[in-house]
Amino acid sequence: MAESWSFLDTFEPNFTPLVVIELAKGTKEETIEWFTKRIVDKKANGGEYSMIFCAQLLVKPLVTENGDENIYLVGASPFRLLLGAETVGLVKECNDNSMRTFTYSSRKTFKDFADDNDNFLTMAECQYIIKHELENLRAKDEKIIPGYPQAKLYPGKSIVRRLLTSGILVQIFPLHDREELKKLRHSWYGRVKVGYQPLDEIRCYFGETIALYFGFLEYFTFALIPMAVIGIPYYVFAWEDYDKYVMFATFNLLWSTVILEVWKRICAIMTYRWGTLLMKRQFEEPRPGFHGVLGINPVTGREEPVYSSIKRQIRIYLVSLPFVCLCLYFSLYVMMIYFDLEQWALDYHAENESNFSSLMLFVPSIIYAIVIEIMNRIYRYAAEFLTSWENHRLESSYQNHLILKVLVFNFLNCFASLFYIAFVLFDMKLLRQSLATLLITSQILNQFAESLLPYWLQKRHKKRMKKRMGSLKTDTDLSLVEQVNLEKEMGTYFGTFDDYLELFLQFGYVSLFSCVYPLAAVFAVLNNITEIYSDALKMCRVYKRPFAEPTANIGVWQLAFETMSVISVVTNCILIGMSPQVNALFPDSKMDLILTVALVEHLLLAIKFIMAFVIPDKPRDIQIKLAKLEFESLEALKQQ
Amino acid sequence: MAESWSFLDTFEPNFTPLVVIELAKGTKEETIEWFTKRIVDKKANGGEYSMIFCAQLLVKPLVTENGDENIYLVGASPFRLLLGAETVGLVKECNDNSMRTFTYSSRKTFKDFADDNDNFLTMAECQYIIKHELENLRAKDEKIIPGYPQAKLYPGKSIVRRLLTSGILVQIFPLHDREELKKLRHSWYGRVKVGYQPLDEIRCYFGETIALYFGFLEYFTFALIPMAVIGIPYYVFAWEDYDKYVMFATFNLLWSTVILEVWKRICAIMTYRWGTLLMKRQFEEPRPGFHGVLGINPVTGREEPVYSSIKRQIRIYLVSLPFVCLCLYFSLYVMMIYFDLEQWALDYHAENESNFSSLMLFVPSIIYAIVIEIMNRIYRYAAEFLTSWENHRLESSYQNHLILKVLVFNFLNCFASLFYIAFVLFDMKLLRQSLATLLITSQILNQFAESLLPYWLQKRHKKRMKKRMGSLKTDTDLSLVEQVNLEKEMGTYFGTFDDYLELFLQFGYVSLFSCVYPLAAVFAVLNNITEIYSDALKMCRVYKRPFAEPTANIGVWQLAFETMSVISVVTNCILIGMSPQVNALFPDSKMDLILTVALVEHLLLAIKFIMAFVIPDKPRDIQIKLAKLEFESLEALKQQ
Repeated sequence: MAESWSFLDTFEPNFTPLVVIELAKGTKEETIEWFTKRIVDKKANGGEYSMIFCAQLLVKPLVTENGDENIYLVGASPFRLLLGAETVGLVKECNDNSMRTFTYSSRKTFKDFADDNDNFLTMAECQYIIKHELENLRAKDEKIIPGYPQAKLYPGKSIVRRLLTSGILVQIFPLHDREELKKLRHSWYGRVKVGYQPLDEIRCYFGETIALYFGFLEYFTFALIPMAVIGIPYYVFAWEDYDKYVMFATFNLLWSTVILEVWKRICAIMTYRWGTLLMKRQFEEPRPGFHGVLGINPVTGREEPVYSSIKRQIRIYLVSLPFVCLCLYFSLYVMMIYFDLEQWALDYHAENESNFSSLMLFVPSIIYAIVIEIMNRIYRYAAEFLTSWENHRLESSYQNHLILKVLVFNFLNCFASLFYIAFVLFDMKLLRQSLATLLITSQILNQFAESLLPYWLQKRHKKRMKKRMGSLKTDTDLSLVEQVNLEKEMGTYFGTFDDYLELFLQFGYVSLFSCVYPLAAVFAVLNNITEIYSDALKMCRVYKRPFAEPTANIGVWQLAFETMSVISVVTNCILIGMSPQVNALFPDSKMDLILTVALVEHLLLAIKFIMAFVIPDKPRDIQIKLAKLEFESLEALKQQ
Repeated sequence: MAESWSFLDTFEPNFTPLVVIELAKGTKEETIEWFTKRIVDKKANGGEYSMIFCAQLLVKPLVTENGDENIYLVGASPFRLLLGAETVGLVKECNDNSMRTFTYSSRKTFKDFADDNDNFLTMAECQYIIKHELENLRAKDEKIIPGYPQAKLYPGKSIVRRLLTSGILVQIFPLHDREELKKLRHSWYGRVKVGYQPLDEIRCYFGETIALYFGFLEYFTFALIPMAVIGIPYYVFAWEDYDKYVMFATFNLLWSTVILEVWKRICAIMTYRWGTLLMKRQFEEPRPGFHGVLGINPVTGREEPVYSSIKRQIRIYLVSLPFVCLCLYFSLYVMMIYFDLEQWALDYHAENESNFSSLMLFVPSIIYAIVIEIMNRIYRYAAEFLTSWENHRLESSYQNHLILKVLVFNFLNCFASLFYIAFVLFDMKLLRQSLATLLITSQILNQFAESLLPYWLQKRHKKRMKKRMGSLKTDTDLSLVEQVNLEKEMGTYFGTFDDYLELFLQFGYVSLFSCVYPLAAVFAVLNNITEIYSDALKMCRVYKRPFAEPTANIGVWQLAFETMSVISVVTNCILIGMSPQVNALFPDSKMDLILTVALVEHLLLAIKFIMAFVIPDKPRDIQIKLAKLEFESLEALKQQ
């Protein structure tokens, strides 16, 4: 097959492979040739940029022992990567310590830049650039994928996306760097130490999205410590006096506002340092799954698929929204059935007391837990399908809509039964019991199912693989072929969604009913400390290396956490109002009690909003730096 | 004195005068010479811009009959004005219909630009530019104002500001253009017609701030019409059934959210067309009253006075905030005294029924009204002093802090007694009566005191002036000297603050207790229709022409109106809960009633916030245009 590579005039056999493309076995040769040609081809003169791209990506087949040629390694020349960094709009530190959007022509002004310095771009950034370029390979005049007449193409359709949906392309993933990974593992969780995580190193290796998740996890854990410390004596000494009670709840509510506001500032500091705070998201290329008629983007003036925003709105409000509401209703309906079953089991137990009947007491809970799990999974698929069908132009917009959909449903599934117990059954003892059980079991199950079980499976699998390959080398000594073969079998990390969701639900357990169960924060802190380690293990050992993704903030999760803290003001005020200690203060009139509670609630909400308004979202020095950059960009426009 | 003008090498006796400077009578000659020299002097080479400003403002003395030379007319060459337009960052429409920041070098690309076209900049813009240049005349090495050793200067101090505070400079104001004003008056209120105001013409003549106020007034009036229409049958047929009642209140609450959200969109459309939406406010020059040590602005890198933000924060939170709280407390205390007096008068009347005693019934109200008025005035001075002392760098920030201070106090003064009647005395009849009285009398008094009385006074004064000058010409035939002499005696318009405050309080009367008095919206609409005319009369006839001020939105007033609409959800829900019709629905349990009301309130608030979140603040086409401009500015920075 060596002849077919002759057209690659810049074929370099010794480039650093960064990304792996796995094609289906038995893919037709003309398809491979066409696809690799598209990857290595020069960009046409003119077109979207006025400059000519003279570089292309580099591809070489990975020759395995059994002669299969379905795996290809992709890399790029340093020059091509720098051009790509300009295309994706990377922001880097300049010699004068300011952060600026990287451009090839101004490359000399950037810190640590040298023509022979391969470390100017981190490996994660290089892989992100290659992924971006691959995903934006779009069909021009091809009507079909050569060799597969059933795989239709139209102008502007992402080729990689079509190859994936047709099953010709199995997967694309970035390679691990065994040396770097070893160093990272050591400084992250390899030694016993008390201290911060190496967030900058995590960011260099895994990219900003994942580093930001670990940063948030760490910050959130520290932020919970005051709540936990205050909560312990309440539990130990069973303080249930009115004043102490209210003080605890008030502290929690104000504290949760403060930590969310301060997180925004810390996040801004971090992402400014990483350059992502300045990356312009509105000029994002359309996400690979986005389809539409080829048109002109009104913002950039470039040719790309366009899709009517009104059509999208119609799909969102007339299909997705009613569907979500229906699902929520169904979930509530199932919950009511569960409580009926529960009641029925209790009655049955009371009537015919026997071993069988006491066993029967657990049946409704078990059935409900299974049903919830099934509903969650089905709903997740439906949400993904619907959001994809809504055809969002930007990946961020797609993610936000998906997160919102799943979030609402999960919130209801997790907390509806607690709300029912608290505000319909008025059973505080049952509430405390349910809360503790839910919190602790969900934490243990999560850590097990999410990290430890996959780690164990992966370890077993790896051993078997290595045995089959007849080698017993350590990870760092593996040949490239062995490394690729090992990594392509690892599981795929589907993003930080589930990790954030877990934290979000935990925040709900801690804040929504904080005055009923002051120990919740303690468990949350303990869980999060181990969570850091198990998540780190998961990232480094269990899953394929994920592609880096630049982000400036935790996006819709910030809103989700803030909404939760508003809801928790309401629930806590009601709980305090319902407590016997507070009721004893208003022996004559329930009305006065309720009015007082309502007044306190409104005051707390007002204080919350004023605090959120008064605390600036970005520290002053970051504000100045941003204003400076904007001023310069304005001056630059004037000079034109 | 003609010799002393010899240094003005570009002295043009026939330039168009735009701005009038009135110095105190008997100002020393050396001061006049120094000041006018500073005004006409060339800017030094280099300095804040890399280009050399070769133009200067033009000044000539106005020679009156009695030979006084204390009034100077300021103008500028067309070239100087265009450079000034670049300095202040005016945004104008280009030939390709996009809005761009004007620069002198790119002037040919702008719509309607021609080298001999004096109408490219509106007269209001020219006057704004001249004002900006005058106010930014700053002391370099002068230690005092020549001739006035007691008037100290330090580097960076605004000369005009020091002259004003020393009493040497009496006033600076822009001249009316009699021809234009006549045209504007005719299309605005001169003929009987039903239709929109000529907002674009108002903007050309008076600038964006005033045009935006009239735009808001018009929009708000139209937006109130549905409320008024729905309110009439409630009043006429005395509908007080539960369901109709709740429906009216719910409609009002949701409607008030919608109109405030839609206003943001309409405002964005208007200010985009006017170019102010794109003007970068963060690079505003410091306001004239701002003082500090000369330093380097970290954003622009230019030399200007700087003042520690921490010091400002300390002044705001440790002095201003406690002071405001104290004033609010005092105001409440006065209100309680008023209610005591009221009670005492009632008791007195009940005991000794006589003519004197029934007259005594009015005494507390009259005293309270007078005290409120006095408190408002004193507080206003205190607030202005404090905000000025806080030393805000930007005029907008100064205004926002002043508005916030005055707003809170006025809100309390106006509505505290209504809240007391509603939620402490529970007297709905008295509430309705007080509300109607307050609303109607305040509207009538306002229109009279604000426009009609000054108009009458101004007219009388003008007649007398003209008689003294022995001329009975119409306005347009007046000589320049006569015109300046007439205009310098006219009152000064102190900005849109009081006009917005009036609308804000009106919105409070309409929305806070809407279900008690459905006719409020009707009166508001009627008042606003006449308000448009009386305010227009005020602007055109009564006051000196104000300087134009570019603004992109109504600023802190948007927040104020939104906060009012949130508060009105709470008050209306409580009022509905207190109504006998609703109470009749829950005959057994007050508790159920309160809980239901609280639930409904929370639902309404949630809907409000979701609506505010879902409705985009800017229409899609404006969003695209803004994104496009930002993209271009990014590309321009890349090209550097």
